[in-house]
Amino acid sequence: MALYSVESLEERVVAVLQNAGATFEMAHSTACALVKAEAQGLGSHGLSRVSQYASHLRSGRVDGSARPAILRSHGAGVLVDAGEGLAFPACELAIREAISRAREFSIAFAGVTRSHHFGVAGLHLDAVSQSGMVGFAFSNSPAAMPAWGGSRALFGTNPIAAVFPRRSGDAVSIDLSLSEVARGKLMVAAREGRQIPLGWALDKDGRPTTDPQAGLDGMMCPAGGVKGAMLALMVELLCVSLTGAAFGFEADSFFSVQGNRPHIGHVFLVVDPSALAGMDSYFDRVDVLLAAMLADEGVRVPGSRRSNMSDRAAANGIEVSDTALAQMSA
Amino acid sequence: MALYSVESLEERVVAVLQNAGATFEMAHSTACALVKAEAQGLGSHGLSRVSQYASHLRSGRVDGSARPAILRSHGAGVLVDAGEGLAFPACELAIREAISRAREFSIAFAGVTRSHHFGVAGLHLDAVSQSGMVGFAFSNSPAAMPAWGGSRALFGTNPIAAVFPRRSGDAVSIDLSLSEVARGKLMVAAREGRQIPLGWALDKDGRPTTDPQAGLDGMMCPAGGVKGAMLALMVELLCVSLTGAAFGFEADSFFSVQGNRPHIGHVFLVVDPSALAGMDSYFDRVDVLLAAMLADEGVRVPGSRRSNMSDRAAANGIEVSDTALAQMSA
Repeated sequence: MALYSVESLEERVVAVLQNAGATFEMAHSTACALVKAEAQGLGSHGLSRVSQYASHLRSGRVDGSARPAILRSHGAGVLVDAGEGLAFPACELAIREAISRAREFSIAFAGVTRSHHFGVAGLHLDAVSQSGMVGFAFSNSPAAMPAWGGSRALFGTNPIAAVFPRRSGDAVSIDLSLSEVARGKLMVAAREGRQIPLGWALDKDGRPTTDPQAGLDGMMCPAGGVKGAMLALMVELLCVSLTGAAFGFEADSFFSVQGNRPHIGHVFLVVDPSALAGMDSYFDRVDVLLAAMLADEGVRVPGSRRSNMSDRAAANGIEVSDTALAQMSA
Repeated sequence: MALYSVESLEERVVAVLQNAGATFEMAHSTACALVKAEAQGLGSHGLSRVSQYASHLRSGRVDGSARPAILRSHGAGVLVDAGEGLAFPACELAIREAISRAREFSIAFAGVTRSHHFGVAGLHLDAVSQSGMVGFAFSNSPAAMPAWGGSRALFGTNPIAAVFPRRSGDAVSIDLSLSEVARGKLMVAAREGRQIPLGWALDKDGRPTTDPQAGLDGMMCPAGGVKGAMLALMVELLCVSLTGAAFGFEADSFFSVQGNRPHIGHVFLVVDPSALAGMDSYFDRVDVLLAAMLADEGVRVPGSRRSNMSDRAAANGIEVSDTALAQMSA
C-alpha cells in the first residue's frame, strides 16, 4: 500500500485509457470520475474499472473516438448521444445542459443514449448540488434481475441517485441500486465457501438459491421483492423509452471483454428550488428534517461519509495497493 | 351486496362530503377519485375513505371551503396550494398544468403544498397517459417508518407511481408504497391472532416484532431495508423541500379524527416523449420490453388488472355491500 495524490492517479488512468484508444477528453473525464469514486471508498466503481473499460476500448465494445453530441433539444429537455463511447463525457454534457435549462425553466430533463457503464450514479450530481439545485440520476444496466413473476433476467440493477444541497454542510446524497444486495456479496460468499440467505439471488432457472455460485450464474433478487422489481421496470422504461437506448436484456454484461456495444441509457433530472417554494424555504425544510433525523442516535446523513473521505483524499492522497495499480494497467 | 352504477355512487359520495362541509367542486373531484379506486378493486383507498374524509371536514382537519390556487409558476414548474382542503381538486389542477407545460417545455414539475391524503397515487396519472405522456407521482404521508438506523417514525410510506402509455392497449401503470407490506396485512393478522414475519414491522421502540398489534402501535419496516428507507427519505425531501409542505413526522395520522391539518406535499412530473426520442421510437421501445416481459409465463403488465376492472365497472356497475354503504354515510 502507498499513498498517491488524486492528480497522479488521474494521470495514470488517463494514460491507460488513451493507450487503449480513448481520446484525451474521454480518458480525462473517465479518470476524474473513477478516481473520485476510489477516493470515496467506492472501490467497486473506482480503479478496479480501469482495466474493464480499457478492455472494452480494445475489443471494440466502446468507441474511443466518440464525442458526445446533442441529438435533440426542446425547452427544458435535451437528449445526448454518447456515440458508443465511455459514458462520462456524455454525462458531463447532459448535466451541464440540465443545470442551465433548470435555471431557465425550473426543471430539466437530460437523457443520454447509446452509452456504457456510467459509474457511481450519485457522483454525476455533484455539479448539481454545487449549483444549489436538486438532482436525480437513473440508469439502466445489463440484465441481472427478472420481471416480477418471471424467470429470465430482463432488468438491470438500475441505480437511482438523488442529491439535495444544504445551506451549510454536505449535501444529502442518496445512491442505491435496486437489487437486494450487490453481486460483490455473492462473490465474497463464493470465495469463502459460505451459503447466502434466501432472498439474495435466484439460480439460472429463476429458483431461489442459497448457493452463491448458482446466484452468480443466475440472477439477483430485487430489493423488497415486488417493489424493487416494479421500480426496476420503472427505471428501465424511463431510461430507455424516452431516449431510444437499449434495454438491459439487449446489452451484454460489462464483465465480459467481448460482447455488443451496450447502448444503455441514463436520465438526469434537475430542479431549481428557487423557482418553486424558494431557496430560504427549501433550506429551512431540509434543515428541519436533518435535525429530526440526527436527533435519533444511529442515524447519519447519507453521503456524509463519502464526502469526508473525499476531503481526506484531496488533502492526504489515496491509499492504493501495488496489486490494484498493476491490475489497472494489465 | 348489490350493484351500483359509477354515477350513482359518485352522487352518494358527493352528498356525504357536501353535507360534511365540502364545496361541490371538492366533493365531486374527491368522489370521482374514490369511486374510481373502488371500481379498480383498491378498496382501502375507495369508499372506505369517505367517512374518514367527512370526519376530517367536520373536525376541522380539512377546510371544506378551500379552492386550489397557483402559488408560483415559472416556465416548466408550478406550485399549487391545496389550501388545506381535500387533495383532489389541487391534484387535478397540478396535473392539468403539468401536462400543458410538458407539451411546451418537454418536461414539467407540478408540486402541491398544504394538502391532505391524495388517494391512489397512480390514478392521478390517468390524464397524463391519455395525453400520450409519461408521468410520475409522489407524495409524503404521516410518519410510519424510521430513518435507517433510527427508532422513531419520521417518514411516511411515501408512494411512488409511474405511467407509460402504449401505442395500443393499457398503459403500464406502476404504483407502490415504500413499506415492506401495507398496514392492512398487520390488521388482518391481529384480527386472526396470527404472528407476522420479522421484517414487516417494528414495535414503538424500533425493535423488530412478530406481534402484529405491537407493529400497529409501532412502525412499518421499509421495503428492502436500507433501500426502502433511502427512497422514503428521497420522496420525503422531494415532496416537502421544493413545495414548502410539512414532513411526515409533522403531520398527524389520517386515521384519527382529531389532529392537525396535515399540510403534506405531492409532486407530479410529466415528460413528453415526442420532444425527446420521438413518439415512434418511444412506442416501439415500450412494445419491445412488454413483449419480452410477456414471453415469460407468470409476468403480467402492471396496471392491466386494474384497467380491466375499471372497464367492467363502467359497463356493469360496482358491487358494494350494504355495510360499506352504511359506513360511508355514518
